[in-house]
Amino acid sequence: RQDPYPSRLSAPPPKRLLPRHESLAQQISKNGPLTPTQCADFERDGFLFEESFLGADDIALFQQELDRLLSRDAFRGREFTITEPDSAAIRSLFAVHFLSTAFKKLAFDPRLLGRVEQLLGGQAYIHQSRINYKPGFVGKGFDWHSDFETWHAEDGMPAMRAISASIVLTDNTPFNGPLMLIPGSHQFFVPCVGETPEDNYRQSLKKQRIGTPPEEALRELIDRGGIQAPTGAAGSLLLFDCNTLHGSQPNMSPQPRSNVFFVYNRRDNLCTEPYGAAKPRPEFLAHRPDKNWTPIM
Amino acid sequence: RQDPYPSRLSAPPPKRLLPRHESLAQQISKNGPLTPTQCADFERDGFLFEESFLGADDIALFQQELDRLLSRDAFRGREFTITEPDSAAIRSLFAVHFLSTAFKKLAFDPRLLGRVEQLLGGQAYIHQSRINYKPGFVGKGFDWHSDFETWHAEDGMPAMRAISASIVLTDNTPFNGPLMLIPGSHQFFVPCVGETPEDNYRQSLKKQRIGTPPEEALRELIDRGGIQAPTGAAGSLLLFDCNTLHGSQPNMSPQPRSNVFFVYNRRDNLCTEPYGAAKPRPEFLAHRPDKNWTPIM
Repeated sequence: RQDPYPSRLSAPPPKRLLPRHESLAQQISKNGPLTPTQCADFERDGFLFEESFLGADDIALFQQELDRLLSRDAFRGREFTITEPDSAAIRSLFAVHFLSTAFKKLAFDPRLLGRVEQLLGGQAYIHQSRINYKPGFVGKGFDWHSDFETWHAEDGMPAMRAISASIVLTDNTPFNGPLMLIPGSHQFFVPCVGETPEDNYRQSLKKQRIGTPPEEALRELIDRGGIQAPTGAAGSLLLFDCNTLHGSQPNMSPQPRSNVFFVYNRRDNLCTEPYGAAKPRPEFLAHRPDKNWTPIM
Repeated sequence: RQDPYPSRLSAPPPKRLLPRHESLAQQISKNGPLTPTQCADFERDGFLFEESFLGADDIALFQQELDRLLSRDAFRGREFTITEPDSAAIRSLFAVHFLSTAFKKLAFDPRLLGRVEQLLGGQAYIHQSRINYKPGFVGKGFDWHSDFETWHAEDGMPAMRAISASIVLTDNTPFNGPLMLIPGSHQFFVPCVGETPEDNYRQSLKKQRIGTPPEEALRELIDRGGIQAPTGAAGSLLLFDCNTLHGSQPNMSPQPRSNVFFVYNRRDNLCTEPYGAAKPRPEFLAHRPDKNWTPIM
């Protein structure tokens, strides 16, 4: 099988950066809620930040729902519940659009789905969903990475036709570890060195070791595009391309930093066999279109 | 021996916060290079930030000197050379005012010493000096802590009559892990739980585990004073009280973040036996007034 995006290599690749094959300019539709300027910004930077996407009532509602889900004893110790690397504090809860009707409604909210399908230029389904909770003081950061690199290597996602939507339910400050992105990095695929260990997700969801770009590639992309950390009040929406490099710092503030996160994949970009792993990851990390998921309780 | 600042406790203390006994208002002198407003700011916040303390020529000179010192093979693997927790990259080099005549001259520059002695209200000597080099991508952060807590417990510094001067030789950005401080935290001593292990400095200079304030105390102090991260161009000077809580995030940028760091103690505040450790730390971490230090080569 020919692979335009080889990664998890056993030796350093001949080229640090490979070209992206899917053109956003051709993909993005004129029809939808986003203005031509917003579309052009997304195409150039690989992300789009919108403040006040959710109103105060909705923020309070989803925050309550998030607290309710994170405190459910039945979810403790389950595979879809990820704890911090050095503590028992919950860091992420996956498959939330199946665990919560409120989050399911948000995931398919026409305002959100409309934006996503406009940028994808086609119909979308949810590949992954989660809530993230970065506890005050102990919430760790995440090193630079491309989500597509993992979804391609470990979930078998063929092309760069997926978009992530992150809605923060707490204010972003420079001190609570907001998401940082490298503008323009989505235009290049960075092959990563290191073969995928068995059940890598058990480690990588706490702290990613495999599938992290080499320093020289990061340096080149940051020299080109810099670093941005969109900050704003709770309720803001960040849409970013599946291949935009991003990371975050730890939370040094007393308050948690929580957000909800949906990944939309284009329906004609169905996942196949993994491109860089022996077997696919569990379904709670990589859903199929029109297929329900429920935890075995 | 009565100790107003007990720490390294074997059980949680009855009070989270203890009062500071040394009054900055009484200590700070009217005579010196700092204006009454600058003195009042320092008294209230526990720190003072001044941009453009060094000019471009000096910055280049000291950066060269820093590079020269960090690349000296003779300093590798020495006790006064501290590497990153997860790599061999050099994080700090201590006793630099003894290792370098350029840094010695800077440490005793009348503009710097004048400011420090004005704030200390008396004559000062250098308790500790170092250069810090936070390498791009791999430079780790530091959790919240008070330097005085360590100097009191491990070096036997009796009272809060010391001041740190940090001069950054690279631009501060939100992405390269600048120093963050909790304004007003210098007014309280936070007793820490956990007895000091033998030779704790070997661990603590890489990543501090003992002498870190409990979360509830941090929460209370941040609720009162917030968090500030003075950012500015290379050459800026940060003066901060020995008891001001501070920390930093990792360096997510490609460029290193380097600075030079001098700790001035008042001459009548001589270190005695440690208040919370079995034996004092080595001299390269806690110098005596008018006493030379040289590494055994």
